[in-house]
Amino acid sequence: MTTKEVADKLVTLCSAAKFDEAMDSLYSPSIVSMEAGAPPGPSRESKGLAAVKAKAQWWTTNHEVHSATVEGPLVAGSHFAVTFKLDVTFKPQSKRFTMEEVAVYKVVDGKVVYEEFFYNM
Amino acid sequence: MTTKEVADKLVTLCSAAKFDEAMDSLYSPSIVSMEAGAPPGPSRESKGLAAVKAKAQWWTTNHEVHSATVEGPLVAGSHFAVTFKLDVTFKPQSKRFTMEEVAVYKVVDGKVVYEEFFYNM
Repeated sequence: MTTKEVADKLVTLCSAAKFDEAMDSLYSPSIVSMEAGAPPGPSRESKGLAAVKAKAQWWTTNHEVHSATVEGPLVAGSHFAVTFKLDVTFKPQSKRFTMEEVAVYKVVDGKVVYEEFFYNM
Repeated sequence: MTTKEVADKLVTLCSAAKFDEAMDSLYSPSIVSMEAGAPPGPSRESKGLAAVKAKAQWWTTNHEVHSATVEGPLVAGSHFAVTFKLDVTFKPQSKRFTMEEVAVYKVVDGKVVYEEFFYNM
Protein backbone atom coordinates (compact mmCIF):
# COMPACT_ATOMS: atom_id res chain seq x y z
CA MET A 1 0.00 0.00 0.00
CA THR A 2 1.09 3.57 -0.62
CA THR A 3 1.41 6.09 2.21
CA LYS A 4 -1.96 7.56 1.13
CA GLU A 5 -3.65 4.14 1.19
CA VAL A 6 -2.27 3.36 4.66
CA ALA A 7 -3.33 6.83 5.85
CA ASP A 8 -6.87 6.52 4.51
CA LYS A 9 -7.31 3.08 6.05
CA LEU A 10 -5.99 4.28 9.41
CA VAL A 11 -8.42 7.22 9.38
CA THR A 12 -11.33 4.95 8.47
CA LEU A 13 -10.54 2.42 11.21
CA CYS A 14 -9.79 4.99 13.93
CA SER A 15 -12.94 6.98 13.09
CA ALA A 16 -14.85 3.79 13.88
CA ALA A 17 -12.81 3.41 17.11
CA LYS A 18 -11.26 0.23 15.64
CA PHE A 19 -7.83 1.07 17.08
CA ASP A 20 -6.81 -2.56 17.58
CA GLU A 21 -7.68 -3.46 14.01
CA ALA A 22 -5.70 -0.44 12.79
CA MET A 23 -2.61 -1.62 14.67
CA ASP A 24 -2.99 -5.26 13.66
CA SER A 25 -3.45 -4.53 9.97
CA LEU A 26 -1.25 -1.47 9.44
CA TYR A 27 1.60 -1.52 11.97
CA SER A 28 5.03 -2.99 11.45
CA PRO A 29 6.26 -5.47 14.10
CA SER A 30 9.05 -2.95 14.72
CA ILE A 31 6.73 0.06 15.22
CA VAL A 32 8.10 2.82 17.45
CA SER A 33 5.52 5.00 19.22
CA MET A 34 6.40 8.33 20.82
CA GLU A 35 4.15 10.19 23.24
CA ALA A 36 4.29 13.93 23.91
CA GLY A 37 4.61 13.03 27.56
CA ALA A 38 4.75 9.75 29.38
CA PRO A 39 2.00 8.41 31.62
CA PRO A 40 3.29 7.56 35.09
CA GLY A 41 5.83 4.75 34.80
CA PRO A 42 6.73 4.14 31.17
CA SER A 43 9.01 6.31 29.03
CA ARG A 44 7.83 8.42 26.08
CA GLU A 45 8.93 5.75 23.65
CA SER A 46 7.40 2.32 23.08
CA LYS A 47 9.22 -0.09 20.78
CA GLY A 48 7.66 -3.05 19.02
CA LEU A 49 4.07 -4.00 18.31
CA ALA A 50 3.58 -5.83 21.62
CA ALA A 51 4.67 -2.79 23.64
CA VAL A 52 2.57 -0.41 21.56
CA LYS A 53 -0.50 -2.64 21.89
CA ALA A 54 0.09 -2.88 25.65
CA LYS A 55 0.13 0.92 25.85
CA ALA A 56 -3.11 1.07 23.87
CA GLN A 57 -4.60 -1.57 26.13
CA TRP A 58 -3.74 0.53 29.19
CA TRP A 59 -5.39 3.52 27.55
CA THR A 60 -8.59 1.78 26.48
CA THR A 61 -8.94 0.10 29.87
CA ASN A 62 -8.69 3.44 31.65
CA HIS A 63 -10.76 5.63 29.32
CA GLU A 64 -14.37 5.54 28.20
CA VAL A 65 -14.63 7.07 24.70
CA HIS A 66 -17.82 9.11 24.19
CA SER A 67 -16.87 10.28 20.71
CA ALA A 68 -13.83 10.22 18.40
CA THR A 69 -13.25 12.55 15.47
CA VAL A 70 -10.34 11.95 13.13
CA GLU A 71 -9.40 14.61 10.57
CA GLY A 72 -7.01 14.27 7.68
CA PRO A 73 -4.84 12.74 6.42
CA LEU A 74 -2.29 15.18 5.10
CA VAL A 75 0.22 13.08 3.16
CA ALA A 76 3.81 14.01 2.24
CA GLY A 77 6.16 11.34 0.92
CA SER A 78 6.51 8.57 3.51
CA HIS A 79 4.78 10.58 6.24
CA PHE A 80 1.25 11.61 7.03
CA ALA A 81 -0.54 13.59 9.73
CA VAL A 82 -4.02 13.36 11.21
CA THR A 83 -5.74 14.94 14.20
CA PHE A 84 -7.70 13.16 16.90
CA LYS A 85 -10.40 14.87 18.95
CA LEU A 86 -11.60 12.58 21.68
CA ASP A 87 -14.33 13.15 24.24
CA VAL A 88 -13.37 10.73 27.00
CA THR A 89 -13.74 9.95 30.67
CA PHE A 90 -10.63 8.92 32.60
CA LYS A 91 -12.25 6.14 34.58
CA PRO A 92 -10.01 6.01 37.68
CA GLN A 93 -10.97 9.62 38.48
CA SER A 94 -14.36 9.74 36.69
CA LYS A 95 -12.96 12.83 34.98
CA ARG A 96 -14.42 13.73 31.59
CA PHE A 97 -12.30 15.81 29.24
CA THR A 98 -11.63 16.56 25.59
CA MET A 99 -8.29 15.45 24.19
CA GLU A 100 -7.00 17.04 20.99
CA GLU A 101 -3.80 15.88 19.37
CA VAL A 102 -1.82 15.87 16.16
CA ALA A 103 -0.44 12.46 15.17
CA VAL A 104 2.38 11.96 12.64
CA TYR A 105 3.09 8.57 11.05
CA LYS A 106 5.90 7.19 8.92
CA VAL A 107 5.23 4.41 6.43
CA VAL A 108 7.83 1.97 5.05
CA ASP A 109 6.88 -0.88 2.70
CA GLY A 110 3.18 -0.36 3.34
CA LYS A 111 3.45 -0.52 7.15
CA VAL A 112 3.50 2.14 9.86
CA VAL A 113 6.98 2.06 11.43
CA TYR A 114 6.79 5.25 13.55
CA GLU A 115 4.08 7.33 15.18
CA GLU A 116 4.38 10.44 17.30
CA PHE A 117 1.70 12.37 19.18
CA PHE A 118 1.63 16.10 19.90
CA TYR A 119 -0.64 17.48 22.64
CA ASN A 120 -0.46 19.49 25.83
CA MET A 121 -0.09 17.63 29.08
CA MET B 1 -4.53 34.84 17.68
CA THR B 2 -5.94 31.34 18.06
CA THR B 3 -4.02 28.28 16.89
CA LYS B 4 -6.27 28.18 13.81
CA GLU B 5 -5.60 31.85 13.00
CA VAL B 6 -1.83 31.36 13.34
CA ALA B 7 -2.06 28.20 11.20
CA ASP B 8 -4.06 29.88 8.46
CA LYS B 9 -1.70 32.85 8.33
CA LEU B 10 1.35 30.58 8.19
CA VAL B 11 -0.16 28.60 5.30
CA THR B 12 -1.02 31.81 3.42
CA LEU B 13 2.47 33.28 3.84
CA CYS B 14 4.37 30.06 3.09
CA SER B 15 2.22 29.36 0.02
CA ALA B 16 3.44 32.72 -1.27
CA ALA B 17 7.03 31.72 -0.35
CA LYS B 18 7.04 34.52 2.26
CA PHE B 19 8.93 32.39 4.76
CA ASP B 20 10.77 35.32 6.36
CA GLU B 21 7.54 37.21 6.91
CA ALA B 22 5.96 34.09 8.45
CA MET B 23 8.82 33.82 10.94
CA ASP B 24 8.90 37.55 11.75
CA SER B 25 5.18 37.83 12.34
CA LEU B 26 4.29 34.45 13.84
CA TYR B 27 7.34 33.06 15.65
CA SER B 28 8.16 33.50 19.32
CA PRO B 29 11.65 34.84 20.16
CA SER B 30 12.14 31.51 21.97
CA ILE B 31 11.12 29.31 19.00
CA VAL B 32 12.64 25.83 18.93
CA SER B 33 12.98 24.19 15.50
CA MET B 34 13.65 20.48 15.06
CA GLU B 35 14.77 18.88 11.79
CA ALA B 36 14.28 15.24 10.85
CA GLY B 37 17.99 15.14 10.20
CA ALA B 38 20.70 17.73 10.48
CA PRO B 39 22.53 19.27 7.55
CA PRO B 40 26.30 18.85 7.88
CA GLY B 41 27.51 20.77 10.91
CA PRO B 42 24.56 21.92 13.04
CA SER B 43 22.46 19.71 15.32
CA ARG B 44 18.81 18.77 14.68
CA GLU B 45 17.65 21.47 17.06
CA SER B 46 17.81 25.24 16.58
CA LYS B 47 16.88 27.45 19.54
CA GLY B 48 15.78 31.07 19.32
CA LEU B 49 14.54 33.18 16.46
CA ALA B 50 18.01 34.28 15.36
CA ALA B 51 19.21 30.67 15.04
CA VAL B 52 16.05 29.58 13.23
CA LYS B 53 16.29 32.48 10.80
CA ALA B 54 19.96 31.69 10.21
CA LYS B 55 19.00 28.11 9.33
CA ALA B 56 16.34 29.40 6.93
CA GLN B 57 18.87 31.80 5.44
CA TRP B 58 21.25 28.89 4.77
CA TRP B 59 18.42 27.00 3.12
CA THR B 60 17.18 29.82 0.90
CA THR B 61 20.74 30.70 -0.14
CA ASN B 62 21.42 27.13 -1.21
CA HIS B 63 18.10 26.25 -2.86
CA GLU B 64 16.21 27.69 -5.79
CA VAL B 65 12.46 27.17 -5.27
CA HIS B 66 10.59 26.36 -8.50
CA SER B 67 7.26 25.79 -6.77
CA ALA B 68 5.89 25.43 -3.25
CA THR B 69 2.62 23.78 -2.29
CA VAL B 70 1.36 23.97 1.28
CA GLU B 71 -1.57 21.79 2.37
CA GLY B 72 -3.57 22.02 5.58
CA PRO B 73 -3.70 23.07 8.30
CA LEU B 74 -5.04 20.33 10.52
CA VAL B 75 -5.57 21.94 13.93
CA ALA B 76 -5.83 20.20 17.31
CA GLY B 77 -5.66 22.26 20.50
CA SER B 78 -2.34 24.13 20.63
CA HIS B 79 -0.86 22.18 17.71
CA PHE B 80 -1.31 22.13 13.97
CA ALA B 81 0.14 20.22 11.01
CA VAL B 82 0.72 21.17 7.39
CA THR B 83 2.55 19.56 4.49
CA PHE B 84 5.11 21.19 2.23
CA LYS B 85 5.82 19.97 -1.29
CA LEU B 86 8.75 21.82 -2.76
CA ASP B 87 10.24 21.55 -6.21
CA VAL B 88 13.76 22.87 -5.66
CA THR B 89 17.28 22.87 -7.00
CA PHE B 90 20.14 22.45 -4.52
CA LYS B 91 22.41 25.06 -6.03
CA PRO B 92 25.87 23.78 -4.93
CA GLN B 93 25.24 20.55 -6.88
CA SER B 94 22.74 21.90 -9.45
CA LYS B 95 20.56 19.00 -8.33
CA ARG B 96 16.81 19.39 -8.78
CA PHE B 97 14.52 17.35 -6.55
CA THR B 98 11.09 17.28 -4.93
CA MET B 99 10.98 17.59 -1.16
CA GLU B 100 7.86 16.45 0.69
CA GLU B 101 7.51 16.91 4.41
CA VAL B 102 5.04 17.06 7.27
CA ALA B 103 5.50 20.01 9.64
CA VAL B 104 4.02 20.18 13.14
CA TYR B 105 3.77 23.47 15.05
CA LYS B 106 2.92 24.36 18.64
CA VAL B 107 1.32 27.72 19.45
CA VAL B 108 1.41 29.48 22.84
CA ASP B 109 -0.10 32.94 23.37
CA GLY B 110 -0.57 33.43 19.64
CA LYS B 111 3.04 32.66 18.71
CA VAL B 112 4.74 29.56 17.28
CA VAL B 113 7.07 28.23 19.99
CA TYR B 114 7.98 24.85 18.42
CA GLU B 115 8.20 23.37 14.95
CA GLU B 116 9.27 19.92 13.83
CA PHE B 117 9.76 18.53 10.34
CA PHE B 118 9.25 14.94 9.20
CA TYR B 119 10.81 13.75 5.94
CA ASN B 120 13.19 11.13 4.65
CA MET B 121 16.87 12.02 4.39
